[in-house]
Formats: sequence, C-alpha cells, structure tokens
Amino acid sequence: MSSDKRVCLAYSGGLDTSTILKWLILEGYTVVAFLADVGQIEDFAEVEKKALALGAERMVIENLQQEFVDELIFRAIQCNAVYEERYLLGTSLARPVIARAQVRVAHKYNCKILSHGCTGKGNDQVRFELAWKACDPSLQIIAPWRMPSFFNRFQGRQDLLKFAAENNIPVSSTPKAPWSQDDNLAHCSYESGILEKPDMPAPKNVWTRTVDPLDAPDVPTKFSVTFQEGIPVKLEVEGGETVTGSLELFKALNDIAGRNGVGRVDIVESRFIGLKSRGCYDSPALTVLRLAHLDLEGMTLDSKVRQITSWVGNQWSQCLYNGMYFSPERELLENSIVYSQKHVHGKVDMMVYKGAAHVLARSAPESILYSEEQASMDTLEGFSPEDASGFISIQAIRLEKYGAAKIQQGEPLTRGA
Amino acid sequence: MSSDKRVCLAYSGGLDTSTILKWLILEGYTVVAFLADVGQIEDFAEVEKKALALGAERMVIENLQQEFVDELIFRAIQCNAVYEERYLLGTSLARPVIARAQVRVAHKYNCKILSHGCTGKGNDQVRFELAWKACDPSLQIIAPWRMPSFFNRFQGRQDLLKFAAENNIPVSSTPKAPWSQDDNLAHCSYESGILEKPDMPAPKNVWTRTVDPLDAPDVPTKFSVTFQEGIPVKLEVEGGETVTGSLELFKALNDIAGRNGVGRVDIVESRFIGLKSRGCYDSPALTVLRLAHLDLEGMTLDSKVRQITSWVGNQWSQCLYNGMYFSPERELLENSIVYSQKHVHGKVDMMVYKGAAHVLARSAPESILYSEEQASMDTLEGFSPEDASGFISIQAIRLEKYGAAKIQQGEPLTRGA
Amino acid sequence: MSSDKRVCLAYSGGLDTSTILKWLILEGYTVVAFLADVGQIEDFAEVEKKALALGAERMVIENLQQEFVDELIFRAIQCNAVYEERYLLGTSLARPVIARAQVRVAHKYNCKILSHGCTGKGNDQVRFELAWKACDPSLQIIAPWRMPSFFNRFQGRQDLLKFAAENNIPVSSTPKAPWSQDDNLAHCSYESGILEKPDMPAPKNVWTRTVDPLDAPDVPTKFSVTFQEGIPVKLEVEGGETVTGSLELFKALNDIAGRNGVGRVDIVESRFIGLKSRGCYDSPALTVLRLAHLDLEGMTLDSKVRQITSWVGNQWSQCLYNGMYFSPERELLENSIVYSQKHVHGKVDMMVYKGAAHVLARSAPESILYSEEQASMDTLEGFSPEDASGFISIQAIRLEKYGAAKIQQGEPLTRGA
Amino acid sequence: MSSDKRVCLAYSGGLDTSTILKWLILEGYTVVAFLADVGQIEDFAEVEKKALALGAERMVIENLQQEFVDELIFRAIQCNAVYEERYLLGTSLARPVIARAQVRVAHKYNCKILSHGCTGKGNDQVRFELAWKACDPSLQIIAPWRMPSFFNRFQGRQDLLKFAAENNIPVSSTPKAPWSQDDNLAHCSYESGILEKPDMPAPKNVWTRTVDPLDAPDVPTKFSVTFQEGIPVKLEVEGGETVTGSLELFKALNDIAGRNGVGRVDIVESRFIGLKSRGCYDSPALTVLRLAHLDLEGMTLDSKVRQITSWVGNQWSQCLYNGMYFSPERELLENSIVYSQKHVHGKVDMMVYKGAAHVLARSAPESILYSEEQASMDTLEGFSPEDASGFISIQAIRLEKYGAAKIQQGEPLTRGA
Repeated sequence: MSSDKRVCLAYSGGLDTSTILKWLILEGYTVVAFLADVGQIEDFAEVEKKALALGAERMVIENLQQEFVDELIFRAIQCNAVYEERYLLGTSLARPVIARAQVRVAHKYNCKILSHGCTGKGNDQVRFELAWKACDPSLQIIAPWRMPSFFNRFQGRQDLLKFAAENNIPVSSTPKAPWSQDDNLAHCSYESGILEKPDMPAPKNVWTRTVDPLDAPDVPTKFSVTFQEGIPVKLEVEGGETVTGSLELFKALNDIAGRNGVGRVDIVESRFIGLKSRGCYDSPALTVLRLAHLDLEGMTLDSKVRQITSWVGNQWSQCLYNGMYFSPERELLENSIVYSQKHVHGKVDMMVYKGAAHVLARSAPESILYSEEQASMDTLEGFSPEDASGFISIQAIRLEKYGAAKIQQGEPLTRGA
Repeated sequence: MSSDKRVCLAYSGGLDTSTILKWLILEGYTVVAFLADVGQIEDFAEVEKKALALGAERMVIENLQQEFVDELIFRAIQCNAVYEERYLLGTSLARPVIARAQVRVAHKYNCKILSHGCTGKGNDQVRFELAWKACDPSLQIIAPWRMPSFFNRFQGRQDLLKFAAENNIPVSSTPKAPWSQDDNLAHCSYESGILEKPDMPAPKNVWTRTVDPLDAPDVPTKFSVTFQEGIPVKLEVEGGETVTGSLELFKALNDIAGRNGVGRVDIVESRFIGLKSRGCYDSPALTVLRLAHLDLEGMTLDSKVRQITSWVGNQWSQCLYNGMYFSPERELLENSIVYSQKHVHGKVDMMVYKGAAHVLARSAPESILYSEEQASMDTLEGFSPEDASGFISIQAIRLEKYGAAKIQQGEPLTRGA
Repeated sequence: MSSDKRVCLAYSGGLDTSTILKWLILEGYTVVAFLADVGQIEDFAEVEKKALALGAERMVIENLQQEFVDELIFRAIQCNAVYEERYLLGTSLARPVIARAQVRVAHKYNCKILSHGCTGKGNDQVRFELAWKACDPSLQIIAPWRMPSFFNRFQGRQDLLKFAAENNIPVSSTPKAPWSQDDNLAHCSYESGILEKPDMPAPKNVWTRTVDPLDAPDVPTKFSVTFQEGIPVKLEVEGGETVTGSLELFKALNDIAGRNGVGRVDIVESRFIGLKSRGCYDSPALTVLRLAHLDLEGMTLDSKVRQITSWVGNQWSQCLYNGMYFSPERELLENSIVYSQKHVHGKVDMMVYKGAAHVLARSAPESILYSEEQASMDTLEGFSPEDASGFISIQAIRLEKYGAAKIQQGEPLTRGA
Repeated sequence: MSSDKRVCLAYSGGLDTSTILKWLILEGYTVVAFLADVGQIEDFAEVEKKALALGAERMVIENLQQEFVDELIFRAIQCNAVYEERYLLGTSLARPVIARAQVRVAHKYNCKILSHGCTGKGNDQVRFELAWKACDPSLQIIAPWRMPSFFNRFQGRQDLLKFAAENNIPVSSTPKAPWSQDDNLAHCSYESGILEKPDMPAPKNVWTRTVDPLDAPDVPTKFSVTFQEGIPVKLEVEGGETVTGSLELFKALNDIAGRNGVGRVDIVESRFIGLKSRGCYDSPALTVLRLAHLDLEGMTLDSKVRQITSWVGNQWSQCLYNGMYFSPERELLENSIVYSQKHVHGKVDMMVYKGAAHVLARSAPESILYSEEQASMDTLEGFSPEDASGFISIQAIRLEKYGAAKIQQGEPLTRGA
C-alpha cells in the first residue's frame, strides 16, 4: 500500500486511541501502532494484543527508558529544571524521546503520516507535533481531536463507548477514574475530570507514585547521592544497597522517595496554549535529585555562575514545557548548562520522611570554593577585615546619592513607608 | 559632650557587643545602646540592665515588629523572595528595619557615630552599613571587628572572657552553643562554629523555631490563608481560630508551621563578600506563606506576567541579600511587584505535617484567568480545536528550519545524543 | 441592516483594500471604511471619495496623531525601544492606536465585524487582530488574505487589476513601486518586491522620509532637546526655532533629521510569525530622540537602574513588535519604565549631519548623580583611594579561587587561549 | 636581589609612571618596566631609553596586537559587545591581554610585586588588579595613587613636575593636553580635565583615531566584510584592496572608518566604582564590525537564539567593563556565544561616509533561515495563510481575558490613556 495511507499512531491501549485506531482503519488507513515504554506501569503484551485485534498492521513497542533518563531526566537535574517554580516537567521530559522514536518507526515502516490522541486544548499535541515537524517536516499529521469530522462525532465518553461496542473494541471492565493520568519514570500526572475544580483537594486515591505522607513509614530513610559533572552516579542507602547505573539509580530513588510520600505537587499552571489548568503530579526521584543537585551547586559553583545558570535553566525549562526541545535555543541553553557542570562533583546526604525531603550534609572534596578556614568566623587567616571597609564604602557611593536625592525630594529614607 | 564622641551601638547583651560597649567607653566614647525588637526571643529588661551596668548612657529598645512584617516580610511574600533558590532571607529582611531605626535613634540622641558588632567576613556588616550610609552618610561608623586595634587584641573567645572578667562584664553561666544564631520573626539562623563543617549534619538541638519533623504531631494541621493584593489578610485554622492582623497572623503561622517542623533549610550559600558559608535557617511562617502565595499566583496572574515578576522578584531578593534595600533599584523593582499584585486575591488551603507544607486547593473568585469550562478536556465550549493546528504550524516554522539545517549538517534530529 | 453583516474595514485607498471593499459588498456586507491619520502623507479627501464611490456606507477618517505621539512614540523613547537592536518599531507603534480607534468606530456604527487587508505572512495581521480581540473579543474578523476563497481568486496583481477593471475601481495611473511601504509619523517602512533580495542594496528612490546622506546639506544642523521625566518637551534649533508641543516637536525633528539623512535602517529581521524578512525603515525623529534620551539617562539614572530598565525596555519592545500592546505584561513593563523616569530631566545638545546624529553635550542640573568634583581625576575631595583597595580585594576573592582552580586543572590563566 | 623587592611596573613613559618608576627606586625597589604594544601610537624606543635612564633594571616591550585582536576584539564582535548601549569597551578589552602578559613578565624576571599608575577613582585599577589576582594571587600589588604616602606628596601636576626636575626625569616639551587619553587598536579614549564638564562639547582636536565628520571625504567608501563563525575573515574594499589576516583586516578597517569620521562616542557612563564620568571614545573598526556582525546575525541566527545571545552578550560586556575577564562567569558566557556562532557565515556590504556607517546589503548562502520565497508577499508557496488565524486565536486567549478583566474593572481598553 502506498505510504500515503500508512499512519504511525501513538497508541496506548486506552479507549481514545483504540477508537482512533479503528476510525483510521475505517477511513482507509493502514495503521502501525506505536507505544513507547518510558517506565509507565503497563501491560504491554495486552496493549499489543488489543492493537492487533483492532486491525493494526503491527504494534511496535520500544523501551526508551535508558535514553529518557540519560538524555532528558538527568539533563533536567543539571538544569534544576522547574516550570512556574513548582512543576518538575515530568510529561514534558518524556515527549521528545517518544516523539523522536515515533518518527524513526514511521521511517522504518514507511509511514508518511503520524497520529496521536491528544486533545486540542492541551500541551501534549504541541509537544508531539513540534517535535515531529522538527524531526521530519515531510510527515503529515492526523490529530483527530482537532478534526470536526471526529470531534463532532465523538462528543463525549458515551459516543466513544457506543463506537467501541459497535466495533468490538474491548473496554476495560474497571470504571474509568474521573480524571486522566500520564505515567512515566519521571512522574505521574493527574488532571481533568473532577480535578478541574481547583478549590477541591485531590482525592486521596489520585496519587500512584507516592504514598500519602500520613501513611508513610514512621522511620525516615537516609541516603546519599553522588554526582559527577552534575549527573547522579551513585546512590548509597543507609543500611542498605548501593546503586550506580543511571536508570537503576533513578528507579531506586523513585521507590525510596515514593514510599516516603515525597514529590507531590498540586498546582494551577499556565499551558502554552494560553489556558490555565490544574495539574497534580507526583515526581519522587526527580524531587529528591533536584534538591540534592541544587545543594551541591551551593558547594561547587561560583555565585555569579549560579546566577547565570539559574536564568539559563529557567529558559531551558520553558523550552521543554512549550514543546521546544528540538530547537536551536534549547541546544544553545543546554550547551551552556553542561559546560557549567564540569566541576559539579560531590556527595549529598539526605533524608526523606513523611512527605518531605531534607538535605542533611554535603561534601565536594575536589572543589576549593568552600573553605572552612576562610569561611570561619573564628579565624582571620588569609583575610584582611579592613578590606571589607573599602568594599562597603565603594558600594555605598551610589546609595549615598540615592539617600541624598531622597532628602532633596523631601522623602528622607529614615522616615519609612 | 560633643556629638563627635557619642556612639549609637547596636547592642544585643551578648559577650561580643558587651565587650564593644565597654571598650568604646574605655576609648572615651559615650554610648547610646540600641536594641530592636524584631520578634526575637529575648529578655529585654535584662539586656537594658546589663547595658546600663556597663556604662551605657541609655538603652533604647524599640519594638519594630509591626513595620518589619508590613514593610519587609509581606513584601518578600509578594516577591516570592528567595536567594539561590533556597534561603528565604530572614536576616536580610530584618536588617533594613533595624538599621533605619538605629539612624533615627542616633539623630534623636545626638550621636554622630554608629557602631555594630558584626564580623568582617559576613553579610551583616554590609547590610547595616549600606543602610546607614544611604540613610545618613554624615554619620561615622565604628566597626571594631575590622579595626586591627580591636581584632588583634581579641583574637578568640578566651580574650573576650578575660576582658569581661577584668571589666565586670557579666557572662552567662550557660555555656555558649558552639555556633551563632540570629533570631527574628522571619526566622532563626544558625552558622559558624561546628556548623562550618558542611559535611556534618546540624545537631538536633540547633533549631529553635521548628520542632524536629520526627517529633512533630501525628495529626496534620489544616488551615487556609486569604490574600488581598498578594498580602496575607486572614488565617483560618481548621477547627480553630481565625486571625486577621498582619503581625498576629504571621505569629500564629510561625507557631503552627513551627510545631509541625516546617521551614528548615540547610545550605552552603554565597556571601556577598565572595566567600561560601554554611547556613541553617528555620523560617516556618515564611515557608508556608511563600508557597501559598506562589500557588495563588497560579490562579490569578497571567503567564507572561509571572515570567516577568519571577525575574523581578529574583532581582529584589538579590538586592535584599546584598544589603541594597535602600537603593534606587530596590525601589524600582518593588514598585513593579506591587503593581503586579493588584488582582492577586484569593484563598489557599494548606496542610502542614511532619516537616512538609502541602497546598491542597485554592480559589480566587474575582479572577477570570482560570475557567473550569475553558480548561475542561470534556467540552469545547468557546474553543476551536482547529486553531491549535495553526498555532502549532506557525510555531513550527523555526523548528523545521532547525531540523532541515541539522540534516544538511549530517546530524539529523532523529538520531539522538 | 443587521449588525451581523456590517463590516468596519481598515481602508487605505490602495488597490488591495479597494478590492476588498468591493468584494465585501459583493458578498453582501455593508462596509464602514476606516482610515486613521497617523501622520502619513495621504490625500484623505481622495480616499474618502474613492471609498464612497466603491459603495462604502461611509468613510471615517480620524486624526490620531496626537495620541500616537503621546501614548506610543514618546513611551518608546522612554523605553529606548528597539527590536533586534536595530529596528525602532515605527509600524508596531502605530498599530495599537489605529486598532483601538477602529474598534471604537465599529461600536459607533454598529458593526459586528472588523476587516483588514494585511497578508497572512506578516506581522500586521497579528498586531491588528490581537489588539481587536483584546479590545472587544465579541467582534468577528474577516481577513480576506487568509481566506482561500479570496486568495485563490486573487493570486497576483493581474487578478486585482482585472477585478478593478470589471468593478470600476479607479487605479492610480502612476505605476506601483516594486515594493510596499507603510508611512506614519514615526517612520516609513519599505519591504517586499525587489527588496526581498537582501543582497541587493535598496534603490536610492526607496526612502521617503530621509534624503540620501550624500545629498544632505554640507552644513550640519545643531539643536538641543529638553526632557522632563524622560519625555521630550522642548526643541531648540541653533539659530532657529524653539518648539514645545509634543506633536509639533516630533514633526519638527522629523523634518530636521530627515533633511540631514538621519534614521535609515536596512535589516533582515525575525517576524513574529517565524519567518525572516528584509525591511528598510527611515525614522528620523525617532532615531535622534532615542539617542538623546539614552544619553540623558547616562546623567540621570543610577547604573543598576539602567541595567534593569534596559531589560524592561527590551521586553516592552518585544511586546510591541509581537502585537502584544494590549496585554498585562506590557502594562506591567510600562509602569516600571514610567516609574524609572521620574528624575530624567535635562537637556541634550546634538548635531545631525549627512546621515549621522551626534551627541555633543548634555546637562541635568537637577540630578546629583554626576558630580564633576567627584568624578575628577584631579582631586580626591570626598574620596578615599584606599577604599578602592578593599573593594578590589573583596571582588577578587572569587576570582582568585577561579585562578587557583585553573592551576589545579593544569590550565593556568597566564597561558592564554 | 630578593624577589621581594623586585617590581614589575606597567610603564608608559609619561610623567605619572616615570615618577612612580623613580619613586619605587628611591624606595629601594628594583624595577622591571613593562609596556605592552596593543597598537597604540608610541615611540617604543624612546620609552625604553627613558625607563633605563631613570634606573629601571630593564624595559620589556611586548607586541600583543595579534592576541588582542584574536582573543578579545573579535570575541567582542561575536558578542555584539557594548556597555550601557553605547560604549564599545575599547579599554576594557585591552586590559586582560596587558595584565596577563605583565604577570608572565613578572614570573620571568622574578618579580614578586606588580605596580601600575592608575588612579584610585577609575576602572583601570580594578581591571588590572582583578586580572593580576586571578592570574597569580601570590603577587603583591603596589598602587601608588592609593597610597597616602604617595598621593599626599603628589597632589597635583606641579608636584610631579617638581619631582621630575629634582630627579632628572625628562618631561615632554609639548604641553600636555588638558585631558587624558588611552590608545590601543580598538579605540582611543579621552577623559578627565576639561572633558569633565559634560555640558561642554569635546574640542575638535580631542579625537585622534577619527577625522571630524565635517572634514571627511566627499565620496563614500564602500566595502564588504566576510565572516566565518562570527569572526571577520575578509575585507574587500570597492575598487581597492582585499585583506584577510585578522590583525591586518582590523587595522585596514580602522583606517577606512577613521578616515571617514566613523566611530565617535561621547557619553556619561557609570564606572564600576560607583561614580559617573564622561568619556569620549573613537573606535572606527569596532563600530563598523559590530554593525556588520549584528546585521549578519539577522540572516543567520534564529530569533530565539538572538534573544538569548543578546542577553549573554550583555552580561559578557558587563564582565569586561568591570574587569572580570578572568572569571568563571565570563568563561561560561563566552562558551555560549562561541557556540551560537557556529553558522554565522556570510558577507555584509557597507558604506562609510562623513561620520556614519551604513549596511547596504548582505548574503549568507549557507544559511537557510532567510528564504526569499518563503518571506515573499507575492507567493504562498509552502505557506498556509489559514495557519495564521489559528496562531492569532491561540495567542489571543490571554489577551481576551485581559480585555475582559479591564471591562469588569471599568477601564475598557478602547478608552485609551
């Protein structure tokens, strides 16, 4: 069949993408179903069975966990990545890896069309499609939820169920949770449905990657994380295991932090598309590693360098959130972050306990930036206190002018607000 | 006596400033001792008694708590102020209020000289003196810890104790903690001494404003904070009190969060003076209010406005940390933050529990930025999904060029790192 | 007639908008033609005659020059506004004023639809429509150059001329210049047609607001501009007139600078829409006033304040270029700039000559920031040179660590690149 | 002699450093005089003769022109470096090269002390000493103009002349210009003396590297500059020579632009030390190359990349001005700029004429960012105008909320200011 009617569809096995799969076939397309394994909890064999049963030519499942951790998650750690000061970007980080793999699958199986089941109001459509267009602009895109012929036909869940019944699409017997979720190594996200009321707390059973802090163990877990060039390379759990591979380390930390209720965020955020939405996220390992990395930078990065990388990391986060991973600006920003991490080596001791992560201590033997003797209030070795007088006097020149001008204007600074 | 020999000394009652007080007198100065009440735990009557016993002409104690909360702490909340992404600036916030009051006291009691007991390696000397110079550059400053005649004479605690014994300076019978601390409404800080080893956890008994999370109550405390123009105006504790005055509200939150072990930070930070140092801070109410405010901004501030105020608040924090409160740039930045808060009204529901603060829900009835209907994935009311296609296509123009150039350069984006 | 079929069209009298006017009528609409007088060279009576002849219900021409100068142009001066470091935003500045007035006209004449003749590739469609949607989102928009029924029918100038002939649309007898231009008080822009070859110099006869520098007078013109709060309030021409009204002053400077060939820019810029395009602009008065204002800020603004306002002005420029004038971020940024200008009073002496503007001198008697005595290398009055030693030593602490680390890494700084 | 009494002095041959040289010898030091040839107009043999006559152990003159151009000047071009939007940093660029070489000379001739003749109020003392301390903090520094024993003795030019007469220091017979100047390849600066009155135009005879625009040739000079990775690699003069070596190219452009009066700047700037001062600078080649480079970036850099590098270049400029060349932040920023220039290849056609530099055209055949077809208003090839509708609608979501809120608040946007 001509590649013009061959579609590579991002297929999850759920009702939405199953409907799309069948609908595409009914519209005359051949469908290569694609599912990326980015660490989500999933019965992959079941998904494959279902895709084939629905008529997919083939089901391609790729394990992308390793590149997800190495290329995206650990880069985010180096960047101290965060969006609007709270969201750790779990979904945003997975999308580039998935989208890129899907383009490769399309190439391999001669598909000229890519398709996904994202809604028209969300960020994910943007992230997938910008990545696809950057990777190969010659591929066509079918986004059914933005096509009137599709969204007018399927106006609610009932329409999907009816179509499923008519087309022998198996539907899970467990009732759907009244919200949607997206799971990967970095986090699980929860949104829409009953979560769209931001003044209602998220139900206790929403969270899947973290236990409720109230149900967490009564004894804290202590561990240390070792970094090389800003990348976690070793996890040592007090009284327990030592883990070194990047993926294994990240999974072990997900387990430890998740068990202790660490990593939940519940926010109203600004989608790229201009809307505000409420999102709940649990990112156990990411939360812990971001904090550890930030702490280590305190020991190993010059203060001005930190100010610069803080701005750069912020821009990187913005890029990722907005689906601009495959962009010249992300590449530029990332080059800068990686460069800054050349000497970010050291170890951070931490504790997780009932919903909170704490830094207890840290060491960076290769760095000379922190000097106990120099910092010490108890000695003047190598420091001339008189220098501080000159430093202050010169810094004051501008401020004295400011104070003098205020007096001139009849608003002396001593007066207060 | 000529005002040229009259000194207004920041006096705390401790060994250092008691030594300085006596030393100044021995050097022929008349001393007006000054102590600001910024909410620290202190026996003020005892301090006064001691100052007078040591020969101070008078002891002036001023309660600045109200202006501290209103002008500094709540402004910091509006700014989401934080230094190096972790330190909430407790000490930095108190200094301008104290320094300004001390200048007023100097004016009132005809002192031409100001003095303090800060070391020559720290931030506080800078903060005090820049504030003093901005408020009144005609005042002289005596900073004994930067004067060789003083610091060569008093090279360690033993020298101070010897001087105290010789000069009838009463010394506390309780042994000094092996670190120093600075207490005010916003936080208590702990540094130097044994804390100068950043690879050693802070001892359990360091913290004064927060209980150990492990010892915190087994039942969480829930409450809500209401904001008007980004300023907290009401605290409602579940099953408890409602507090409305700014100072009372802040104190009540300090109590609630402190009891639940919330607000500890242990970092290595970059002093303005170029050194790295380790600081431990517990800021219970500040921690909770910063989080609540940030959350409410998610509901009430436009995304681009947030990006701008995030940068502005960062600059404001830098100013405060560096002792540049009385500066034209702080005034400019603050004007911008205050302007941005015009519509930051709403309520945030929170929970504190064993060391962590959690946002549970929030509402902002006067804001139209969040719209449940618009955000909803379940309806297309007022939204044309097709628009997103155009949005994505236009955004992709740059990225397609990027991808094409990569292919031209033999590094197709599909390849990965 | 129902307001649903009443269109308010931005009408210039040219071939494009004449075609659109007639086409709208043929499509069954009633058309209120609107033309803003923002200082362009135009035979307004002729435009009105033509609109009515083509069947417009009425022609509304509004003189917006005063608000254009006061609200936009002089604000841009305060912001030192510039896009991509070269373009002075002439067109971007006019759009908000025009768009807002057009909405008012639509309201007045009961039109529910707005229309314009902008192409689908440019910035102006974005600027008009974002402004319209912010001012009144209930109004519909007809953008013919983005409608297939229109752009497929009119694929080139020949199609427009054919339609004109068939519909009695008068066509100018002078042949159209092989580029397009947009004229207003702030500048005239030239783009497309033969200018789309960026490697070909713009023809000598492109420019309308400036003479060729080679043809400019052999004698320079000297003048001074006086500012109050960053706003030009007086122009004094050496040996000539004194002008004070904002509009008159701006026009007089357009004349002086234009006569001397000052204000041409020829660039390749990044359109908001993601494309690169070549634009030529001549902005005589804007060029001179931006330079004068920048110079005066050197005398009257604190250095840190300048760093902040430089960033803010940059963001403001970006907003304007992208059509985001009616946005919360522009309002926030502008508030900050206006605040910063409270003390920007003074006078700048300038010279224009054969294509260049030069600052010769400046004075700001009300400012104390510049002090001849303090700056003087010939006196130490009020300055302790020893302070600089301490200042340098403290600043060096970080740098010495950097140098020491380099030696440790085997890359001593003395070695060079 | 012990290296502890061996000083390496930055020696220019002028009255100040000659006095310092002799004074050092009288104080018991052995002096190695050092002079860097960074392209200034100087009789180097004469300087050497004078140094030796005054008693210097040796005179070391090093030609640093090549590394000055390659490491600093051309990096500044890549950064579009500029301070306070006007000053092209000529002096700031030379200092790191000179300071580093002086440390090498000190090492070679076993000097443990460095010395200079900079005043205590200026930027240059900071630049020299920060560089020295970063390169080798073990070296001592003697800064006579900050030593009371020196500056109290030499309170004015008369004291220096008297000392010269007493010590057989030859004094130039030509009267000293009533201002000071610093000359190097990048520019010549003029400040202090009569220039300290910013309301008085600089005298006609101040400028040395540019002719008065009024005296410049009546015929413009046209040329093109070719860049590779943002570095100028070829100069082609219309009807004239072709130059390719970096140093030769820069010198040739200095000549061309200088002859045509291009590159003068007269400003009041903010010194690092907190004072405002007036500086006049003529930087012919730097002015032309900065403009050319900026123009080429318009063709070859993505818009978002430009926004980032604009900020980065700004920070780099700040570093350089403040003497922070040898700093971790400068290294980080520079790495980013260099990375961004990977594809900045192309040619810019320019004209200089009577004080102004004009870009006439440019080409970048290897870049695909600018596409005549895509940019063209005359064709829709590869562009769907309908996409722009979606793009605008999505962008408008935020703005419509803003407009609606304004109506709610009784301040509709249609009303105007």
